[in-house]
Amino acid sequence: MNENVEVSHFMRSLNVALGERSYPIYIGHHLLDASELLNRHIDSRHVLIVTNEIVAPLYLSMVQESLPGCSVATVVLPDGEIHKTMDTAMKVIDTLISLKMSRNTHIVALGGGVVGDLAGFVAACYQRGIPFIQIPTTLLAQVDSSVGGKTAVNHPLGKNMIGAFYQPKCVIADMTTLQTLPDREFSAGLAEVIKYGLIRDPDFFEWLELHIDDLLNQDLDKLGYAVERSCFNKAEVVASDERESGLRATLNLGHTFGHALETGMGYGEVLHGEAVAIGICLAADLSRRLGWLTDTDVARIVALLERARLPVTPPADLGVDDYLEHMSVDKKNVEGQLRFILLKKIGWATLPIAVDRNQLVETLATYGRS
Amino acid sequence: MNENVEVSHFMRSLNVALGERSYPIYIGHHLLDASELLNRHIDSRHVLIVTNEIVAPLYLSMVQESLPGCSVATVVLPDGEIHKTMDTAMKVIDTLISLKMSRNTHIVALGGGVVGDLAGFVAACYQRGIPFIQIPTTLLAQVDSSVGGKTAVNHPLGKNMIGAFYQPKCVIADMTTLQTLPDREFSAGLAEVIKYGLIRDPDFFEWLELHIDDLLNQDLDKLGYAVERSCFNKAEVVASDERESGLRATLNLGHTFGHALETGMGYGEVLHGEAVAIGICLAADLSRRLGWLTDTDVARIVALLERARLPVTPPADLGVDDYLEHMSVDKKNVEGQLRFILLKKIGWATLPIAVDRNQLVETLATYGRS
Repeated sequence: MNENVEVSHFMRSLNVALGERSYPIYIGHHLLDASELLNRHIDSRHVLIVTNEIVAPLYLSMVQESLPGCSVATVVLPDGEIHKTMDTAMKVIDTLISLKMSRNTHIVALGGGVVGDLAGFVAACYQRGIPFIQIPTTLLAQVDSSVGGKTAVNHPLGKNMIGAFYQPKCVIADMTTLQTLPDREFSAGLAEVIKYGLIRDPDFFEWLELHIDDLLNQDLDKLGYAVERSCFNKAEVVASDERESGLRATLNLGHTFGHALETGMGYGEVLHGEAVAIGICLAADLSRRLGWLTDTDVARIVALLERARLPVTPPADLGVDDYLEHMSVDKKNVEGQLRFILLKKIGWATLPIAVDRNQLVETLATYGRS
Repeated sequence: MNENVEVSHFMRSLNVALGERSYPIYIGHHLLDASELLNRHIDSRHVLIVTNEIVAPLYLSMVQESLPGCSVATVVLPDGEIHKTMDTAMKVIDTLISLKMSRNTHIVALGGGVVGDLAGFVAACYQRGIPFIQIPTTLLAQVDSSVGGKTAVNHPLGKNMIGAFYQPKCVIADMTTLQTLPDREFSAGLAEVIKYGLIRDPDFFEWLELHIDDLLNQDLDKLGYAVERSCFNKAEVVASDERESGLRATLNLGHTFGHALETGMGYGEVLHGEAVAIGICLAADLSRRLGWLTDTDVARIVALLERARLPVTPPADLGVDDYLEHMSVDKKNVEGQLRFILLKKIGWATLPIAVDRNQLVETLATYGRS
């Protein structure tokens, strides 16, 4: 709250290397208390903070007070994935335009993945692009959605179908905000953390097997390490493939099934991280059927997800045909053919590949409603 | 219609130099008859043609037939600027998604500026970006909106307020399509042609003074030259400043007043080029008041626009306060201050500058309703 307060001693910083679009990720605790970090990246007197009804009472005033020289407007969205729509985005744009906010206005996204994705999409589109800053307040947003410049809103027929690649000016991940996160959402974030171990960092997967309970117990030191290592993995992948022409697709492990589950259940019924956890189990099962993972590998994966208090089997609502229908609009598809990220082993993901339909149906029938 | 037909002998090609986003502009006649040009830039089996109800009966089948190996879907929009909205964009997206068109689908924009801006914005947003090709069929689109990657839809409170910088894979400008263009729209296109002379190409301005009647008489050779020289000027400016941080703003000569006029009159009442023509006259008047243009300069500008059969004074509907209100959301504004592109002399535009309010009001009062 005071500009003279030193930035926390516990702070790590990573760089997402994207040439002129490069930006830092700051990871630490009590980062929102100190205004220096945020102000370093705002060179405008006009700021719009986009947040939601859950986060606003907790952290909005703290962020507002750290911008004493600015004219700060605020949009408080209703909570939930169901509101990540073009209609909501247009309401934010209505606010920007009715306040006559110009092209040098900065948008600050304060909240979880829904707030970040939607505010980022608005920043990408308003006047063809204005600067924005991510302050992710959920574990999922800190390790995944706030990093890498994917912004989007959902379409009734498919998740994230409308969006832009648009990089923030910086990401400020304050571990302190995780202390107010509901347990279910914290676990949902762990699904993406575990994903990084599975796709490219086997040592991290083993570290997670040893320390998952410390994370659940909110050990700030271990948590900072897990967020940093997740962001490091994501930043490396994004830097090598910003617009997802290759390697970046591996970040979608579990997401093809997961998105189908989210679309099929209706947005908001199942949390994104929960859907990803279930999707990872289906991808692991399919990888086992292809002879890549052993039964033991699959058991380790399922066990770690369960210890993170995540669901590992889909709800009974969806059948094979439902999955096939919802997956038919997946962004990884080429010429109408479904493609999946699978695992060659723990720590090694494939690029998107087409799979034998019979084996796919076997996996779906095993897990889904028959 | 036949793949073996040679591309027209009359074809010029320009390059828009934007590194990995570079693309060619082809300018010629009977280009749509030959499929080679279009197919050279489509490496997908799936194409969505976006066009409108006026253009479709004239050229749609020609373009469809030139894509024999592709599965081609079509969206035919209603005609007019009034439909350049997010609602219309969402209808195109509904089509893409309901047909399960994947990320390698190519969008072909066949029509004028409204079709190109809207289809380009859809291409920029659908699945975070799919390839698109511009086939502009109006003079205004050929010399301006199809070149440079500005895509957008309008907001009720401001023109082009929602959009993206997103470059096409190529632009195919077929002079033949201008033969079906209504006179009023042809003249509207000439406003942007004249603009290039005014902002950076005094020799071209003089050439236009000599040849404006040839252009109005649809001399294909002179027309090809005028389109090429306009695109050359635009391509040079865009290559030096893709995202409008400086020089690119000079392309907006007359547009600040023009957009206010369009917003104030209601989209579609006045054509964009007509609004720009009037806006150029206001900018010239203001430049004269600042001591930069002589009375003779202003008279030459007004005379050339009049010879191009363009309006040079605004309709009586708008007053000073209306202009000030509508201009207050202009994208060039900084920290709430209005900024204009003005002329130091014929062939030399300023960067956006703030002007003395009294002089601005004098110009508006002279031209607008008092």
